[in-house]
Amino acid sequence: MISESILTLLKREKKSGGLSASLLSSSLSLPTSSVYEGIAELRKLGYKIETEKGKIYRLTSVPDSLIPLEIHDNLKTKILGKRILSYRTLKSTNDLAYRLAEEKAPEGTLIVAEKQTAGKGRLGRKWLSPPERGIWMSLILRPKIPPAKAPGLSLCTGLALVKTIREKTGLQADLKWPNDCLIEGKKFAGILLELSAELDKVNFVIIGVGINVNQVQNDFPKNLKGKATSILMESGKRYSRVELLKTFLEKLEKIYLNFKTFGLKFYLDEIKGSSSIMLGHKVKLLYGKEKIRGIVKDIDENGSLILETRSRLRTISSGEVTLI
Amino acid sequence: MISESILTLLKREKKSGGLSASLLSSSLSLPTSSVYEGIAELRKLGYKIETEKGKIYRLTSVPDSLIPLEIHDNLKTKILGKRILSYRTLKSTNDLAYRLAEEKAPEGTLIVAEKQTAGKGRLGRKWLSPPERGIWMSLILRPKIPPAKAPGLSLCTGLALVKTIREKTGLQADLKWPNDCLIEGKKFAGILLELSAELDKVNFVIIGVGINVNQVQNDFPKNLKGKATSILMESGKRYSRVELLKTFLEKLEKIYLNFKTFGLKFYLDEIKGSSSIMLGHKVKLLYGKEKIRGIVKDIDENGSLILETRSRLRTISSGEVTLI
Repeated sequence: MISESILTLLKREKKSGGLSASLLSSSLSLPTSSVYEGIAELRKLGYKIETEKGKIYRLTSVPDSLIPLEIHDNLKTKILGKRILSYRTLKSTNDLAYRLAEEKAPEGTLIVAEKQTAGKGRLGRKWLSPPERGIWMSLILRPKIPPAKAPGLSLCTGLALVKTIREKTGLQADLKWPNDCLIEGKKFAGILLELSAELDKVNFVIIGVGINVNQVQNDFPKNLKGKATSILMESGKRYSRVELLKTFLEKLEKIYLNFKTFGLKFYLDEIKGSSSIMLGHKVKLLYGKEKIRGIVKDIDENGSLILETRSRLRTISSGEVTLI
Repeated sequence: MISESILTLLKREKKSGGLSASLLSSSLSLPTSSVYEGIAELRKLGYKIETEKGKIYRLTSVPDSLIPLEIHDNLKTKILGKRILSYRTLKSTNDLAYRLAEEKAPEGTLIVAEKQTAGKGRLGRKWLSPPERGIWMSLILRPKIPPAKAPGLSLCTGLALVKTIREKTGLQADLKWPNDCLIEGKKFAGILLELSAELDKVNFVIIGVGINVNQVQNDFPKNLKGKATSILMESGKRYSRVELLKTFLEKLEKIYLNFKTFGLKFYLDEIKGSSSIMLGHKVKLLYGKEKIRGIVKDIDENGSLILETRSRLRTISSGEVTLI
């Protein structure tokens, strides 16, 4: 891609005085007309490129857009995000990912959208996905595991998320089993895992992730006040979504590969360490139609919750938890 | 449907002398030309309809074809098979069922084919489906259960199958966990369960079933000798596929409804009673990439196998079992 090559050179020369069109043209063995077109394209994508005397081009600002050009830049993954489909608007990144997975899209394919018009939450609920405020994304994975082990991937994803947020922002992010991430008890990210499987083996897994990055209080409806939050609201700072996404992909890939080789137990201590808001606490749990109350005793090697109810210990593979 | 109405009347009068075209025409308030067309259509479907003196029509034989006209006839179900899609040839009934389920086909939709060109077995293997020799079918179910409970449906289906075969043929059919049915140690039916799910809830389940009914030894390749069989080969009798299918649908519906209300434990004793070839026996088991040896101790409420290995008891949700 021409614009990508131009961008690479401009980024390299960011701190120097910039590059002339003729130098760009000769470096890339392109006619100057193509260089002009490439620069126009980059500007359209939100890159600020200054021109001195109409000759020297200098990159002064990079957009925080979830576009392949930015996500790929220095991304240290081998699988996740190697192929990226990026959209201004989608109904639901998970729905598109599911369809693409059925059509044999390769493992690691990433679908991102600046805005979702029908973002999906768990159990048929909606996930608010206002434009450019968060990271709305889905990954296609094809692990060779039995479906009973797939719930572990939800915890792995959550772990990658809280590690990312802690490292990049210093905020104390927590895991809420099985698929939410909280800061100070308020949800800032959710995971929606969907799978296609046989009894013995997963065909594919879609890992849908929504991360509230730069919302302000007014971006949330009133009924979510005190329940939902964003990284901006908690930290007072505006973080680059591209940088968060890249770190998240890198951490998730490492965890995913170890999960496939060694199983969830490889990360169980870390997962439990990040689940202190749940372990040892009283919860209400909705499991299918059943309502269960108890104390969270443990998370086991399958990613199931071990709950101490009045009568006995129960192993719960998934459900809707409310902390009491 | 005109042909359906004519067929109903002809079946009712099967033992009497038959019906004249004019009586059919007046009974159904149809012009005689439509009656002639309907009879021609029925004959094309394989119904033998004799004519006496060109005037009296009498049904002398009904085809053993997996067509809605025959399957619906006196079928005592409320959900399963209420909607039937019937094909001469399909690649795979499961694949079509999966696509239809995604397009919101209702619960209970039945897909049958006289022949599959790419019939699917477990783990990407093939299922031989020669024309008119067996029952190659898939059902769409939409139970509101967590995916961890879905494997129970495979055992429920197997139970409905062995009950059907025992009742209709007197043969001693056995369940081989998790999804095969055997007679005298040889496989005559297999179940391929596929599902689309979230972490918490199943979107839909496809129950694929292949039943070898009227194959002879030469219908099987040599490498399956001693491993695969048919009901004809075991009983020496040719059974009506339509009758077997109807009984199976009726039994499965009853079991399915109880499973949804009460869980697998409602049928656990019956399932264990039909699994005597496994319980207490030594097996090799392939679980993902892991090879496990042990003695089958039990089947639990989730449909998992409890295996006593050298070191400990293990709970296995699915796998490939070989009896030693």
